[in-house]
Amino acid sequence: MIAARLHKYHEALKVEEIEDPKIVGPYDVIVKIGAAGLCRTDLHIQEGQWAEKSGVELPYVPGHENAGWIHEVGSGVTNVEVGDTVIVHPFISCGLCRPCRKGDDMHCQFGEFPGIGRDGGFAQFLHTSARSVIKLDPSLHPTEIAALADAGLTAIHAVKKAIPILGAGTKTVVIGAGGLGHIGIQCLKAYTPTEIIVIDPSEKALELAKATGADHTVKVDGSQRELVRELTDGFGADAIIDFVGEKGAIEDGVEMVMDGGFYYVIGYGENINVPTIDIISREISFIGNLVGTYIDLQDLMTLTAQGKVKLHTSQYPLDAINDAMADLDNGRLQGRGILVPA
Amino acid sequence: MIAARLHKYHEALKVEEIEDPKIVGPYDVIVKIGAAGLCRTDLHIQEGQWAEKSGVELPYVPGHENAGWIHEVGSGVTNVEVGDTVIVHPFISCGLCRPCRKGDDMHCQFGEFPGIGRDGGFAQFLHTSARSVIKLDPSLHPTEIAALADAGLTAIHAVKKAIPILGAGTKTVVIGAGGLGHIGIQCLKAYTPTEIIVIDPSEKALELAKATGADHTVKVDGSQRELVRELTDGFGADAIIDFVGEKGAIEDGVEMVMDGGFYYVIGYGENINVPTIDIISREISFIGNLVGTYIDLQDLMTLTAQGKVKLHTSQYPLDAINDAMADLDNGRLQGRGILVPA
Amino acid sequence: MIAARLHKYHEALKVEEIEDPKIVGPYDVIVKIGAAGLCRTDLHIQEGQWAEKSGVELPYVPGHENAGWIHEVGSGVTNVEVGDTVIVHPFISCGLCRPCRKGDDMHCQFGEFPGIGRDGGFAQFLHTSARSVIKLDPSLHPTEIAALADAGLTAIHAVKKAIPILGAGTKTVVIGAGGLGHIGIQCLKAYTPTEIIVIDPSEKALELAKATGADHTVKVDGSQRELVRELTDGFGADAIIDFVGEKGAIEDGVEMVMDGGFYYVIGYGENINVPTIDIISREISFIGNLVGTYIDLQDLMTLTAQGKVKLHTSQYPLDAINDAMADLDNGRLQGRGILVPA
Amino acid sequence: MIAARLHKYHEALKVEEIEDPKIVGPYDVIVKIGAAGLCRTDLHIQEGQWAEKSGVELPYVPGHENAGWIHEVGSGVTNVEVGDTVIVHPFISCGLCRPCRKGDDMHCQFGEFPGIGRDGGFAQFLHTSARSVIKLDPSLHPTEIAALADAGLTAIHAVKKAIPILGAGTKTVVIGAGGLGHIGIQCLKAYTPTEIIVIDPSEKALELAKATGADHTVKVDGSQRELVRELTDGFGADAIIDFVGEKGAIEDGVEMVMDGGFYYVIGYGENINVPTIDIISREISFIGNLVGTYIDLQDLMTLTAQGKVKLHTSQYPLDAINDAMADLDNGRLQGRGILVPA
Repeated sequence: MIAARLHKYHEALKVEEIEDPKIVGPYDVIVKIGAAGLCRTDLHIQEGQWAEKSGVELPYVPGHENAGWIHEVGSGVTNVEVGDTVIVHPFISCGLCRPCRKGDDMHCQFGEFPGIGRDGGFAQFLHTSARSVIKLDPSLHPTEIAALADAGLTAIHAVKKAIPILGAGTKTVVIGAGGLGHIGIQCLKAYTPTEIIVIDPSEKALELAKATGADHTVKVDGSQRELVRELTDGFGADAIIDFVGEKGAIEDGVEMVMDGGFYYVIGYGENINVPTIDIISREISFIGNLVGTYIDLQDLMTLTAQGKVKLHTSQYPLDAINDAMADLDNGRLQGRGILVPA
Repeated sequence: MIAARLHKYHEALKVEEIEDPKIVGPYDVIVKIGAAGLCRTDLHIQEGQWAEKSGVELPYVPGHENAGWIHEVGSGVTNVEVGDTVIVHPFISCGLCRPCRKGDDMHCQFGEFPGIGRDGGFAQFLHTSARSVIKLDPSLHPTEIAALADAGLTAIHAVKKAIPILGAGTKTVVIGAGGLGHIGIQCLKAYTPTEIIVIDPSEKALELAKATGADHTVKVDGSQRELVRELTDGFGADAIIDFVGEKGAIEDGVEMVMDGGFYYVIGYGENINVPTIDIISREISFIGNLVGTYIDLQDLMTLTAQGKVKLHTSQYPLDAINDAMADLDNGRLQGRGILVPA
Repeated sequence: MIAARLHKYHEALKVEEIEDPKIVGPYDVIVKIGAAGLCRTDLHIQEGQWAEKSGVELPYVPGHENAGWIHEVGSGVTNVEVGDTVIVHPFISCGLCRPCRKGDDMHCQFGEFPGIGRDGGFAQFLHTSARSVIKLDPSLHPTEIAALADAGLTAIHAVKKAIPILGAGTKTVVIGAGGLGHIGIQCLKAYTPTEIIVIDPSEKALELAKATGADHTVKVDGSQRELVRELTDGFGADAIIDFVGEKGAIEDGVEMVMDGGFYYVIGYGENINVPTIDIISREISFIGNLVGTYIDLQDLMTLTAQGKVKLHTSQYPLDAINDAMADLDNGRLQGRGILVPA
Repeated sequence: MIAARLHKYHEALKVEEIEDPKIVGPYDVIVKIGAAGLCRTDLHIQEGQWAEKSGVELPYVPGHENAGWIHEVGSGVTNVEVGDTVIVHPFISCGLCRPCRKGDDMHCQFGEFPGIGRDGGFAQFLHTSARSVIKLDPSLHPTEIAALADAGLTAIHAVKKAIPILGAGTKTVVIGAGGLGHIGIQCLKAYTPTEIIVIDPSEKALELAKATGADHTVKVDGSQRELVRELTDGFGADAIIDFVGEKGAIEDGVEMVMDGGFYYVIGYGENINVPTIDIISREISFIGNLVGTYIDLQDLMTLTAQGKVKLHTSQYPLDAINDAMADLDNGRLQGRGILVPA
């Protein structure tokens, strides 16, 4: 098959012919890739930032936001058949350890992450598990939904954690209206009556925020803290949902959360660095978020089918992957980038 | 009445005759103090650390852990009568704002904190509100329970937040087995089947931990992280309950929490300073805790009455307050210090 | 003042001059009634069904859905001022007992229910408490919102209980799209992404259901169980929200709830009568609901101010109360009946 | 192998030689039975009460409370090895449907129930799935824990649902201190600080209740309602946990639950039959309970290993099964009956 592989850190991917993946175990599944989302994490992988954490051996195929059609299944697979349209949960969980039995897939004690720790979806075929595929309506095309497999999944996972505190009259500050943020806004709208305030330095992102359901948008230009204070009656917001995690986002977020409020950490880059006396005297909490469960991804596909969540994308053929990565790196990519094998 | 007042920061309190407090509003209550707990916060007040935050005018009377007997009540008071034994919730909440109507007393929009922002309980009488007193069995003496009004309240509040994650098979690391910690251990025991691991640099504190219910004790001597790792099967603990918040406690705690786990911040001093990439990839959360609600204090009094929580104390007459503060400051005070007016 | 009083069960109310209510305690509040909602419970009161339960002495003034303007306040009242527009929570809670301190107003150990157990709002003035009034924007007129004080409050209370189980992909059957039901549908829409199926025997009610947000409407004509089964893929609904509670509603609801699902009981009349073997083998639960808390009413007022909830009403002058009651009894009243004093 | 089979309803089981079960699918597991618990449901099966519900074809082998050692495994099994000591979760869930992915095993859309709908554990070997076995410490003998697989599991499942409402100062009435009840009491003790009141007509059962942690015991002799009312200060209990469900238990329980309280239905036999006006005006709820999840069973095994839960049993050899069933039927069986194959 054709695949885009990373042979050396800091170098371009090489689009080349490699061997097709094969069914080995009874729960194995081979997906013919219809579309694969491009993520900022793919840039970080190329830069070697994940080299040590993932322990992956080069060359290998990145790509962790995948959708396509079932191509082959192992002897024990009962939930999908050859030809089914599927979205692929990014993680392969074992199904038998305690976290798996609770539905807490991401903390599986024996999990694997295709595209990070082994061959992923920048290819014609992907080797994964029956536990990682969700059957979709055949009318859906993988290009429309592939990027929901990670970006969207992470956003809905964080929003679902926040539901219990986001009743009527509450206010939520969403930091960042990019690939994850614009899904997060739509999820907040679908799940809660909270009033949504979106902050972002980009006018374009704020327009997307408005279009996807923000009640208020605030430009990050130095006046954002004061404007948010006014919009929250001087109390701050019940929740901060931070899709950025760097470049001043954290300091803004900590300032903007109300006493007794919650700060959901999703974007990463810098440190949460807050005096414990403030955490205590203001009784504020910081909630970590890691991708999402299989159920979260099912829920997101339901919201998409109901028209409550829509994704904004730009397509590239798979062999133009290095162009796509350059566009992403240079801020030329609108919405989420999607790679489509020939 | 006789009261101990702070006239100048960094100076000893002055035990002197001042005017008795008076009933002004219909919900006012005057408590004849039977005992007042001495808290490390009282040292910080003397050092001026709270001068700006509280905005209190000197001279004033510290003391925020109070118990005694009802001395006088306003015209609208229906829940206590003159002579009743009471413990005093440290905060005066309005009862009418939205947080109060939810039972979230500490975030009252019009609250006051006697002993911090106005005259407290290092005196013969205390002016407070009907909303702040809990009637106790007359057989209880204030000296036995006064320190539960803040130290104990803070501990039970944090433990109650952790109940939903502390099922069978879970493990909890308690950092610090001092005034708050030894109550925290007893509350964990009463509310959950979690396995309790207590870490502390003091052998004496670890003995108290064992006596109050710890399943394992680990001395903080450099080997603590490895020992806790073994005790948690290499995964870390489901919950960290940190009553210290400084001197290496935070670094230990972050290292000891399992992926997907929760870190409860109670002790204060230094900063929570953690890379967002760790918060995310490990999906760990930090939960702030501020004193506790009126209901929390009622619950703690119930556990005390049932013999599930017992307090360890050392008594001083009120006019020896400066000795007591010196003993606390120099680590000579065993358990919680209690001041008793003549 | 002019008031409508019940002098004898089974007889018409008498509109007559009685003494104005007076401030007695420090938290008392007198509200000048701007509008009072008419409830089916008022018919039941007239019929004597509540005589024993309430123990009220005749003659007295019914009316438990009230809104108006503050006319006079007691010495301790700080949350409202004379002239403020307010909606009146139907219950007077003490504020000091344990349920009150938890925010669980309806289970106050010393509560009173004006309009049921003592004089209510079918009058020019109402005697209530500072704890029962919510200040509103002066632009709102009491006639627009009075009926939210009980009908709406009951609906939002039940819906808020159901939020945790009503995620994406869930289905909810609402039984009855009348005064409470049409508010319940709007609350479900505001708080959850659940798919809403409304069943009712009246075409008119089903039209109102559609207009207020129902995804599907099903006429109760004998085919309703089969249609709901199809709409729920043969599994039944995650939640039943039953605003009727009689005339076959319960049998329908129990049949329509999925295994593991929840049945919210709001309407009353007949019995829940289900074999325990079915409750167990299907693991279904029945959740009781009683009016709602002060916070619930605040939340409902917020949703109303945001345009997410709108009430349908018909107005009558207070002295036409017996006409209004006859219209309600005979099914001639569209939406909620509202009485307006001269 | 030797197995006890039901050939005809209302007749004795026949202990006979039948074919050994075989591995078919990759996740199959054969367990060599060490012990099988005898349940009242086995009597009901014999009486034909489950004939229609289960649709099982005769002859077949009952027995749904099983423990033993792994005898053979399918090609995909990774969580157990031949020789491991295991307890067997009574249900076989698919692992791939939505309820399974949530950890809600009992509502699996493709589940099977050995001992009810197909051959169970009154035999030398049992055919089950990798998803149904929990590996235990080899020092444990199946006879000590087999009955926890259903009786114990059902009890812990109900208790875990009640944790959020059973804080300090709450009171719980446990109805019935038999096979399930005595485990329920120990679970309540392990998980909550609630005050436990046990009611039962049998003095012997009440002794067992006391020995396993009841704070109060009340004999069901006509005075029970009044005694419970006194023990609950006239308010009733926060929770009723009903392990009986017939012979007056339900009427007692509904009378004993406090306003706003919860009634957990576990025992079955008669109907819950309550006027909706009472459900509403008292805001009481009825919670169904069906066996428990795999996680629940793991938790119970942890509590057992920690010495917090102990089971009382009487042993019989497998070929004496009809004697055991007669003893159970006639009330001659103390604790839980356990069958041990030769």
